[in-house]
Amino acid sequence: MNIGFIGLGVMGRPMALRLIDAGHQLTGCVNVSDIDPDLLAAGLRVKEHPAAVAARSEIVITMLPDTPAVERVLLGPDGVLAGIHGGSLIIDMSSISPEATRRFAHRAFEAGCEYLDAPVSGGEAGAEQGSLSIMIGGDDASVQRALPLFEVLGRNIVHVGDIGSGQTCKIANQIVVGLTIEAVAEALVFAARAGADPARVREALLGGFAASKVLETHGERMLQRNFEPGFRSDLHRKDLNLALDAARTLGIALPNTASTLQLFNALAAEPDGGSLDHSALVKVLESLASTRLDG
Amino acid sequence: MNIGFIGLGVMGRPMALRLIDAGHQLTGCVNVSDIDPDLLAAGLRVKEHPAAVAARSEIVITMLPDTPAVERVLLGPDGVLAGIHGGSLIIDMSSISPEATRRFAHRAFEAGCEYLDAPVSGGEAGAEQGSLSIMIGGDDASVQRALPLFEVLGRNIVHVGDIGSGQTCKIANQIVVGLTIEAVAEALVFAARAGADPARVREALLGGFAASKVLETHGERMLQRNFEPGFRSDLHRKDLNLALDAARTLGIALPNTASTLQLFNALAAEPDGGSLDHSALVKVLESLASTRLDG
Repeated sequence: MNIGFIGLGVMGRPMALRLIDAGHQLTGCVNVSDIDPDLLAAGLRVKEHPAAVAARSEIVITMLPDTPAVERVLLGPDGVLAGIHGGSLIIDMSSISPEATRRFAHRAFEAGCEYLDAPVSGGEAGAEQGSLSIMIGGDDASVQRALPLFEVLGRNIVHVGDIGSGQTCKIANQIVVGLTIEAVAEALVFAARAGADPARVREALLGGFAASKVLETHGERMLQRNFEPGFRSDLHRKDLNLALDAARTLGIALPNTASTLQLFNALAAEPDGGSLDHSALVKVLESLASTRLDG
Repeated sequence: MNIGFIGLGVMGRPMALRLIDAGHQLTGCVNVSDIDPDLLAAGLRVKEHPAAVAARSEIVITMLPDTPAVERVLLGPDGVLAGIHGGSLIIDMSSISPEATRRFAHRAFEAGCEYLDAPVSGGEAGAEQGSLSIMIGGDDASVQRALPLFEVLGRNIVHVGDIGSGQTCKIANQIVVGLTIEAVAEALVFAARAGADPARVREALLGGFAASKVLETHGERMLQRNFEPGFRSDLHRKDLNLALDAARTLGIALPNTASTLQLFNALAAEPDGGSLDHSALVKVLESLASTRLDG
């Protein structure tokens, strides 16, 4: 199938490679990403702007860092909607605002196109291995049309609901992951400061109701001081900002999301703090306790 | 072995039954618990006060609701230390203050006895099945002496460190569980209010880094409105109060433990809120969003 793929960064690059390996003809775009030589060697075609990519694609996938980038690529001059044929399908796999998503989808529908929001979780490793979780908003027919592509990219593929529901689900995911990282950090720093060995505490907690992927993975990172991303803390900060923006629009209170975002802000205030893995949030809790997990 | 068991409540009763089934001679105490007829039928002996229980036991286990109850049973008139022989071992399996624990242990050492703090997690079901997590503070020799009993009661048995470390670990456990319940509640309420199906969101999140025992178990309870304990929210409130008491003594900040305790206080303010399962914390988040997960 002719697929446009716009946003060939840390996540988009391995996803595009998997789609090429699965036999699809992919077209990328020079004015959005630097194009990796591996992609060109694999057969990626390159056009000068998103409109030209869209003009030769039945399906256009976007995988971009934030809401303004998606807006520019879809609605800007020489954007996707300026070149796309009626009947094409746009799949936005970026993690962006659910509200803006509904606006972009509306514009796509006006152009006679289909639209899905399908953000992912699972990180670079998941993108490489095709084991991403994919959270989808949109109508059934479009989901069926996209399913063969999703199956190349991910394993836990859930159609959550209408347009925007994929983004809402991704925000819910980031709330749980961020607040669980904060919880594990508070607990391990507390235990260390109270004189217990945080590694043994982690081990004991893995056996009961405190068990989580985060305690397993990020807890281990905190103990090993391994803060190479993984997932950059400033991307998590962006996601919690999306949560609080949506909460303000909805008129609801998310108290621990709000306080956890403040702690991510404090991490961002440290030199290079924003480029560390999100498990580095433990450094902020350590500074609030004048202690370190590694003694 | 002659074992004294003081505190035959929801947790203590099934633990005592397992120890009797394993061939031990148990002695309980009428002035602390109402004695269950099943225990008497199984062969429990009963004395009039903790001193008399201790006088005929090599090992005395306490399983009591809070710090003042343990203080009364150990140090009060006719308490354990008034009757115990030198060389005996006291194992406190209650969840109480680490600081008070060090004081109680010191008094036991002065009386020529050994002491372990060994709080558990896993709830009534874990107590019945002998699958508790046991978090132990104290010296190696005492742990070795108690191990055959711990193996009757639990599966994940971790010697965390010195006296008080078991209690510190249990508090760390309750921080993680409480804050993860709060995180799942914020995320599901947010998703429901934003128009997504919270059951599908939970399903999608179980496939990635947001996965946890709490999302699995308590998340399901929130969706099913099954708030029969399980673990009573006012016991979790007690545990988070222990965390903040210890944090004040240590001079450290636990921001999300503090805010989550406020939300548990709000649950306790509802009629019967304190007697509901701790997953009922979602009701507080729902009221902050004027929404309910079940529509």
